[in-house]
Amino acid sequence: MLPSGRLELIALSGLPIVSPGDDLPVLIARALDRSAVALEPSDVVVVTSKLVSRVEDRFVDLSRVTPSPEGRAIARQVDKDPRLVTLVLRESTQISRKAKGVLIVRHRLGFVSANAGIDQSNSAPASAEQGSGPWVLLLPEAPDASAWRIREGLQQATGVKPAVILSDSFGRPFRTGTVGVAIGIAGLAALNDQRGELDLFGRTLEHTVTALADQIAAAADLVAGQAAERRPVVIVRGLDLPIDEQAGARDLLRDPEQDLYL
Amino acid sequence: MLPSGRLELIALSGLPIVSPGDDLPVLIARALDRSAVALEPSDVVVVTSKLVSRVEDRFVDLSRVTPSPEGRAIARQVDKDPRLVTLVLRESTQISRKAKGVLIVRHRLGFVSANAGIDQSNSAPASAEQGSGPWVLLLPEAPDASAWRIREGLQQATGVKPAVILSDSFGRPFRTGTVGVAIGIAGLAALNDQRGELDLFGRTLEHTVTALADQIAAAADLVAGQAAERRPVVIVRGLDLPIDEQAGARDLLRDPEQDLYL
Repeated sequence: MLPSGRLELIALSGLPIVSPGDDLPVLIARALDRSAVALEPSDVVVVTSKLVSRVEDRFVDLSRVTPSPEGRAIARQVDKDPRLVTLVLRESTQISRKAKGVLIVRHRLGFVSANAGIDQSNSAPASAEQGSGPWVLLLPEAPDASAWRIREGLQQATGVKPAVILSDSFGRPFRTGTVGVAIGIAGLAALNDQRGELDLFGRTLEHTVTALADQIAAAADLVAGQAAERRPVVIVRGLDLPIDEQAGARDLLRDPEQDLYL
Repeated sequence: MLPSGRLELIALSGLPIVSPGDDLPVLIARALDRSAVALEPSDVVVVTSKLVSRVEDRFVDLSRVTPSPEGRAIARQVDKDPRLVTLVLRESTQISRKAKGVLIVRHRLGFVSANAGIDQSNSAPASAEQGSGPWVLLLPEAPDASAWRIREGLQQATGVKPAVILSDSFGRPFRTGTVGVAIGIAGLAALNDQRGELDLFGRTLEHTVTALADQIAAAADLVAGQAAERRPVVIVRGLDLPIDEQAGARDLLRDPEQDLYL
């Protein structure tokens, strides 16, 4: 899995603030050049989903959202903007928990998170008119497909075809603070299944399936930052990856029928 | 937080299989020497809790556990060994969920995880007599204190006092696969609170508290491995850490009264 025993994470600097329609792979390739980092085929390029949402024009002007009756009712219960709640409900298939200030849903893509992953910071488009907004940013429409486009765009731009993860930051039950998770995957396995391997004493390991792509996203989040020194693209280098061309972020989602907590 | 934009993870090789009473900091210092890695004060040393449990003699011979009536009853419901279930109940304060093959509890230390973190693999002590066991391994008695002892032992052995995290692998609601989490912390903040910082557009970031120590543990798990090429100690280098001498793994635990999922 990791012959060298070393892993390196490189946060790219110098990416511009991206806008709808920008060619993200080309911008990443330029930032790689400026950082004097040459992409390697076994690299994983972790891109924050917010960056992809901006390029894919997932901006919504809340002042143009008409609250639904259900949105209004739930907004009162959770003490949130009824237009935001209406959007959250539109993006999701199921409410998991609600409480004052908290609305946790199952996104139509299957992720369980607060506010359907809708981002309320850093989210005005550059073209926003005076007096419009507040603006929010939805998750990419199809994050696995977005990851694939970045993977193939990087191959065109650099000649090297790395694995790509789209990451987001989720809260979680039981534990405080957010962690990076993978919401889109291209070219690597989501899970690392070690169940067949022998442990140190020659017995077969049980129940050792690690959430490879989520752990990569969490590691990248350590160096990505979210504030002024924003570095939304991180290269993860040194993993001997289980390549899986069929894998997707869905592999990281429990079957809701089997989930004891949903 | 990360001036360089680079983070390096170095998995130490050459650690022996440890036994109760071994001086873990001295063994880590020797492995550092052999790997030609000189510890730096801003390093985080991530140690799998299993290694610490072995040194602290947290082995239990299941053949010597007398199942309690409650242990027997729950064991029937979840289809597990009644002696194991009895131990799990002894280690925990609350059952969170149970189902066939699944017993998720709140450990007396506050962590919510399957089987109270009791490890059923790799867990025979070297001194185990023929015919004894099966053996299991409990979590360290006081993981923050264990982390502090390793931190101070490393200072004695190497002259450098790094931060130390004791890590374990937990499953989680909603998502498949296990991720590394911090169950013991010494010398760094558990959380990275960016709420006061300005975002790219000069607005104050909201709700941006990342689970720093958990993300470090997840990153380390990527290189630690669990099988034959076991590398249970990982050096994380390049973080500009928020030092916090008061921090502990409890900072990563939600107040159970406020937990919508427990």
